[in-house]
Amino acid sequence: MIRTIGFDGDDTLWHNESLFALSQDRFYELLRPYTDGTVTAERLFAIGMSNLRLFGYGVKSFMLSMIETAIEVSEGGVTAAEIKTILDIGKELLDHPVDLLDGVREAIAALDGSYELLLITKGDLFHQESRIAGSGLGEFFDGIEIVSEKDPATYERILQRRGILPAEFIMVGNSVKSDILPVIALGAQAVHIPYHITWQHEVVATDEQQRAGYWELASIAELVTKLAVVGRGS
Amino acid sequence: MIRTIGFDGDDTLWHNESLFALSQDRFYELLRPYTDGTVTAERLFAIGMSNLRLFGYGVKSFMLSMIETAIEVSEGGVTAAEIKTILDIGKELLDHPVDLLDGVREAIAALDGSYELLLITKGDLFHQESRIAGSGLGEFFDGIEIVSEKDPATYERILQRRGILPAEFIMVGNSVKSDILPVIALGAQAVHIPYHITWQHEVVATDEQQRAGYWELASIAELVTKLAVVGRGS
Repeated sequence: MIRTIGFDGDDTLWHNESLFALSQDRFYELLRPYTDGTVTAERLFAIGMSNLRLFGYGVKSFMLSMIETAIEVSEGGVTAAEIKTILDIGKELLDHPVDLLDGVREAIAALDGSYELLLITKGDLFHQESRIAGSGLGEFFDGIEIVSEKDPATYERILQRRGILPAEFIMVGNSVKSDILPVIALGAQAVHIPYHITWQHEVVATDEQQRAGYWELASIAELVTKLAVVGRGS
Repeated sequence: MIRTIGFDGDDTLWHNESLFALSQDRFYELLRPYTDGTVTAERLFAIGMSNLRLFGYGVKSFMLSMIETAIEVSEGGVTAAEIKTILDIGKELLDHPVDLLDGVREAIAALDGSYELLLITKGDLFHQESRIAGSGLGEFFDGIEIVSEKDPATYERILQRRGILPAEFIMVGNSVKSDILPVIALGAQAVHIPYHITWQHEVVATDEQQRAGYWELASIAELVTKLAVVGRGS
């Protein structure tokens, strides 16, 4: 019997990766005088990954990695004005209004009252808080957890602290790696709702997906019906 | 009767502002070809404040504001190599080992068991988690709260969620603005342990300090004795 539903934020409740993608395109275009977009994209990903240990996730980390990439791929030729443009691209991304996915508000409102609702989101504390405030969904959640990594230990800590049994918990999110597999590993359930773009870092091999055993829905609108079935323990 | 003690992290348990100050000095020196350190310092503070709404606190925000300041004070003349040096200054700051203040480990260990100990720290989630891990103090704390702002509403939420009455709570920290005044405002108690450097943004006017009524100690070593008195409700 499901009592608590955890929701991921980015690309589950509100658009995120599509905004990052637009910003990245502007960045690749900016550096076209120095090198082509494929090279820039490859270096940005590699530099972002190598900075992950020090920077963690989020837009500020992305801005710093864009600047480092620009210096590298331009072989030190990037101008101060171009670096300023990178800062502006990042600030616009941080300042972008929260854009909910279709049907999110209705689904959350429909589930409110029947389930304990948690928001479990990864990334920058400050920016995620801004997004939650901007989403207008804050009032529906019984708890908000902003975490730096979504692994089984993180989910276990959240469930234990809140006195939630794995059998009573279901997680809803777009990332198989962050929202589904670690939750399944704890013996809880998960619903995967793919977003049309997945960040390369979050992609997992298909066979790993097939082994896990979880529900996959096309949109959050289907969640209310699906939960009525899952909730009965079937 | 005090049952729960909240500790600030930066500049209360471990050195922070002194490391920022060293990084700032390197930054001012780097930009000396363009302008003198006083002007750079003034612009860095102003730009940091204007970015606070979008960036929040922490080293990554500091790095981005240093880059923006460099572009501005050099009137666009700063080179890619100099921007790279700014990135390196920030990365070294993020990667710096956690350096506990004198007597911290002993004081925390002495209080452990007699009180519920909370760590309530402001800043970047990812970096603060790294610092807590690096501090070796994690095991002593019954709860860790990393928050984006330390105002009365934040403290009230923490106390309510944990079922702590203000009369049973005392906060220990170096910032009158963030650790003392908002806690006093809730009817809880506070112990101010000044650090030798206070970030300009955290400085409050003296008359506000005098009105508040809180304990001021020279070091955390005095805390154990002081709490034995406060704890008795005197």
